[in-house]
Amino acid sequence: MQVDNRMLSLAHRMADSAGDILRRAFRADMAVENKEDASPVTAADREVETMLRKLIEAVYPDHGIIGEEFGNIRTSSPFQWVIDPIDGTHAFIAGQPTFTTLIALAKDGVPILGVIDQPISKERWLGVMGEATTRNGAPAHTSRCASLAKAAIATTSTNYFTPEQATSFERLKRACGHVTLGGDAYLYAGLASGKMDIVVDAGLKPYDFCALKPVVEGAGGIITDWNGKPLNVASDGRVIAAANEELHKAALHLLQRD
Amino acid sequence: MQVDNRMLSLAHRMADSAGDILRRAFRADMAVENKEDASPVTAADREVETMLRKLIEAVYPDHGIIGEEFGNIRTSSPFQWVIDPIDGTHAFIAGQPTFTTLIALAKDGVPILGVIDQPISKERWLGVMGEATTRNGAPAHTSRCASLAKAAIATTSTNYFTPEQATSFERLKRACGHVTLGGDAYLYAGLASGKMDIVVDAGLKPYDFCALKPVVEGAGGIITDWNGKPLNVASDGRVIAAANEELHKAALHLLQRD
Repeated sequence: MQVDNRMLSLAHRMADSAGDILRRAFRADMAVENKEDASPVTAADREVETMLRKLIEAVYPDHGIIGEEFGNIRTSSPFQWVIDPIDGTHAFIAGQPTFTTLIALAKDGVPILGVIDQPISKERWLGVMGEATTRNGAPAHTSRCASLAKAAIATTSTNYFTPEQATSFERLKRACGHVTLGGDAYLYAGLASGKMDIVVDAGLKPYDFCALKPVVEGAGGIITDWNGKPLNVASDGRVIAAANEELHKAALHLLQRD
Repeated sequence: MQVDNRMLSLAHRMADSAGDILRRAFRADMAVENKEDASPVTAADREVETMLRKLIEAVYPDHGIIGEEFGNIRTSSPFQWVIDPIDGTHAFIAGQPTFTTLIALAKDGVPILGVIDQPISKERWLGVMGEATTRNGAPAHTSRCASLAKAAIATTSTNYFTPEQATSFERLKRACGHVTLGGDAYLYAGLASGKMDIVVDAGLKPYDFCALKPVVEGAGGIITDWNGKPLNVASDGRVIAAANEELHKAALHLLQRD
């Protein structure tokens, strides 16, 4: 097994510490906040990422770090921690408890450990390559839905699509039974727990998608880029996840039909 | 004061009991659920509303009840409890903790007490006509944002708009600084806590909007129909809420400009 207890323990400690900060910030009265400035949010983002980086450095001073707020360090290390202190900052600002903290560990570019943590609902999805995904310690399973017509599809926002990508997504969306807009990484966590059948996004960054791979795959789902290729830290940010292979194949076919 | 402690105590007890059921249902593994059937969700809806009705009947057997699942009774009573066991059923199914339980008490058609309860994040907004709104017991305030260009606007879904209403909303949306799609009553709770500046919806039912009025008004906000008229149980379901009078006036002007 490539992921050892020390790595797992660190990932949990990171998620715990991020949650402590974010619960406090989420509960804070933001009534007087200037939304254009949005400094309290940036403050929470930075505070969490600074803390996550410290925790990593204390245990693995030789590992690389890829983070949303403070860039990349030690990029030549085989191990890279890929972190997003607040995925769904928009939801966080708007007071919607659907933002998450994302923590991934990649080895030679392949995510082998992923955590999706929602600190308000206190849900934590943990995925480890080759092992069953858990939500709060209990097994998480994707749905058995194998038909597009019955599938619930979601995307974070069609605003991130190019016109061509939007056309592809529209085609797939029309074939699906139910559509959800908005949600970020929390949508993929929902997919890992069988509440969502397909999630499609474009324009994601490594810190947005690396944690998703072990979580989705360990729950029985398939997650790839729009060409059907496995995700790695260098993937182009177009992501499609489905509850199972049959659904993934059908969805990918519609997404690609140009 | 028109709302007495017995009414308040009942409203809290109703929200507590609903939360107990919904937390259990939300955490339940829905992996094998057939989404077209969606029976587990209907089960939770019905279970909560049945319980809420029992609680009302035990204290106020002469009060009327307007509910989403089981219709209206004693409609000629001056007091009407207006209840929605799960507002945002779609979010509930999708595993997004943004659904709420809505409880309102209307007197002579005017909502005088409103509760918006989110049982996963454990947030409860309580509004009483003429009194300050609270979130979990602490005062809630709308934002001071008085400029459309800086305002964060939200709507539950543009799917509920007629083409004319969609045009009106688009016009208003374009003037605003930030847009959120999706959220249901939880958006109005966010507005009451200063996280959202304007919320616009159409096609709402009394059990969707009655609880919003005391909560939004007691937090300093303005909530009316699209003609600027105060909401009551017979309002037409087009709702606009804003953080303050200035913003409400500006938003209403754009919404109405045809």
